[in-house]
Amino acid sequence: MREVAIVGAGMTRFGELWGQSLRDMFAEAAVGALNDAGADHVDSIYVGCMSGGQFVGQEHLGPLMADHLGMTGVPATHVESACASGGVALRLAYMEVASGMSDLVLATGIEKMNDGADVTNVLATAADQELEVYYGVTFPGLYAMIARAHMAKYGTTEEDMAWVSVKNHRHGAMNDKAQFPGEVTLEQVMASSMVAAPLRLLHCSPVTDGAAAVLLCPLEQAKEYTDRPVKIIGSGLATGSMALADRADPADLDAVQRSARSAYKMAGVGPRDIQVAEVHDCFSIAEICCIEALGFVEPGTGKDAAREGFTALGGCVPVNTSGGLKSKGHPVGATGIAQAIEVFTQLQGKAGARQVENARVGLTQNMGGSGASSVVHIFQGV
Amino acid sequence: MREVAIVGAGMTRFGELWGQSLRDMFAEAAVGALNDAGADHVDSIYVGCMSGGQFVGQEHLGPLMADHLGMTGVPATHVESACASGGVALRLAYMEVASGMSDLVLATGIEKMNDGADVTNVLATAADQELEVYYGVTFPGLYAMIARAHMAKYGTTEEDMAWVSVKNHRHGAMNDKAQFPGEVTLEQVMASSMVAAPLRLLHCSPVTDGAAAVLLCPLEQAKEYTDRPVKIIGSGLATGSMALADRADPADLDAVQRSARSAYKMAGVGPRDIQVAEVHDCFSIAEICCIEALGFVEPGTGKDAAREGFTALGGCVPVNTSGGLKSKGHPVGATGIAQAIEVFTQLQGKAGARQVENARVGLTQNMGGSGASSVVHIFQGV
Repeated sequence: MREVAIVGAGMTRFGELWGQSLRDMFAEAAVGALNDAGADHVDSIYVGCMSGGQFVGQEHLGPLMADHLGMTGVPATHVESACASGGVALRLAYMEVASGMSDLVLATGIEKMNDGADVTNVLATAADQELEVYYGVTFPGLYAMIARAHMAKYGTTEEDMAWVSVKNHRHGAMNDKAQFPGEVTLEQVMASSMVAAPLRLLHCSPVTDGAAAVLLCPLEQAKEYTDRPVKIIGSGLATGSMALADRADPADLDAVQRSARSAYKMAGVGPRDIQVAEVHDCFSIAEICCIEALGFVEPGTGKDAAREGFTALGGCVPVNTSGGLKSKGHPVGATGIAQAIEVFTQLQGKAGARQVENARVGLTQNMGGSGASSVVHIFQGV
Repeated sequence: MREVAIVGAGMTRFGELWGQSLRDMFAEAAVGALNDAGADHVDSIYVGCMSGGQFVGQEHLGPLMADHLGMTGVPATHVESACASGGVALRLAYMEVASGMSDLVLATGIEKMNDGADVTNVLATAADQELEVYYGVTFPGLYAMIARAHMAKYGTTEEDMAWVSVKNHRHGAMNDKAQFPGEVTLEQVMASSMVAAPLRLLHCSPVTDGAAAVLLCPLEQAKEYTDRPVKIIGSGLATGSMALADRADPADLDAVQRSARSAYKMAGVGPRDIQVAEVHDCFSIAEICCIEALGFVEPGTGKDAAREGFTALGGCVPVNTSGGLKSKGHPVGATGIAQAIEVFTQLQGKAGARQVENARVGLTQNMGGSGASSVVHIFQGV
């Protein structure tokens, strides 16, 4: 397999983008990535999107987006893995370049969540319809159960979770693409309305419109497009039990562990080598579970990481320097690509006020549903 | 890239499967393919499905299906390209094996269309929502416009189209998996109710539940699983204009032509080398346009092929020996894989009463929407 690099990136602002339709957001992000690399064509396009069908009545996103980009004819493929759709799009684009089938491949993610659909019920189609949704559970409820399990097992508190939100909003305040770039205090998080006990409003990522795109090519051609390419050195995808009730321990995210193992093995690195990471904090408890599953901290100690600064800018492994899903926003299909853009930017040394000094190796972890699918990528500056 | 072979296949009966849910149908097809090859594990799964979200309230199909198959943990990816979802799943599975990333990959397609959703409106999300669907058009209407364009340009008649249905039902009568295995006469087609002029009921493929699966591995390992592997020697994916009004000629299916060119080039064969083909006859006019776009006949002469027996069993290029979408049924996400199973079976020499004698090279063509995406695969018996 050939070595593969990211050579360009583009994204919309994340937020309530009333003035842009799904295809408009796609075009802004895609053109941004092409311009960033100085490229005027692509060989293939992947579109990560959870559900254009349910959110805005539009499936068949591959040809639609290629067409709207002015690239009618180009092979284009829509992939879905709920909130991990973007990560899966990146993995397939990586595979297509690595295999030798194509040279220049655009990996994109999009979601339009604010245009009128019943968001909570649409998102619930990422859970098990027959074993969970039918009985009335939605995602805040599922992650509340994960939080309760973590609290019972490790003594994690509501405040521990609140520190994740405080940290990520502090990072997000430096990101002009973020939906909610303002800082929040511990007191504000703890006083925000209860959504599904013990999760309060400021423990939850928001409902977001947005699109993101990265351009991939063989490493040996990368210098044609940028003087600072970033190599993809590991890619891992794994699944886990779909229904929470089928798992031995809801606080153990098996799919995250498996996808991380695959990616570390492929990259020949371990968790200690990661200098910057974007981790799937759809709810604050998710970041705590994920940094444990990724091996950044020991099981049960994830609760201390944000409060003690271990995962903050300047800490040992800065996590979610972009603001994460919590502050930057979470257009579900776009999130995996936006994570890759943050790490790409960090490894290029272009992250400005939120730059992690001397970062050379970074990681993204993107998760679907209550953790039934997870994608991990590992990146290295060249 | 490594050479890749299909070594096993399984599918449900196509029809109104009230007793099986989406996941049950998947498991039946997947277990069928594994048993056919004598395999007890896979490295990765692709699931082609147009819209579990809209049809049965279920997205995140990758992990759900892996889990229900008893293979929790295995990487699993859902892909969508409307009615070409199955073909795209096959292409990605091919790419994953060819690249060397995985050895044993299951390519599957599923759709559950009879469980209560408003089928016509769900299918319409495969057309351009902003430029077509908003104004009230649905797929019978879009293909009626394609038919009118072909009639105006080439003098094609309603009877020419009816012969496609007569031929495909004659073939389907020999397929015990078919939804409507009965033969129909020309008179019956011409007397059936008008759906969208000039298309009558018996010009249209039905609404179908079903699932199909094939198992792929590197050619050099194929003999471990079967003594009659079938090589995939070409794979082409292309897009075209999403909206019919954006095309120079609605009867010209650009995406089909492009995907065929890519596949022929990769395989090193041309249309004259194809001895059996499954072609996307969602409406009878589609088969006429597609056999022209694939180069089986000259533009404008597709109308004569079924009537003259050119595309019938015993003819020059038997098309849709399975019965096609018309007689076998069209569970949209499953169709592309079911097409591959028919050609796999033909090239293995196991097609029974509908066997094409001495067939060594076959082709499948699977199309999304009104032709905005098309996938062509070319197969060779070993």
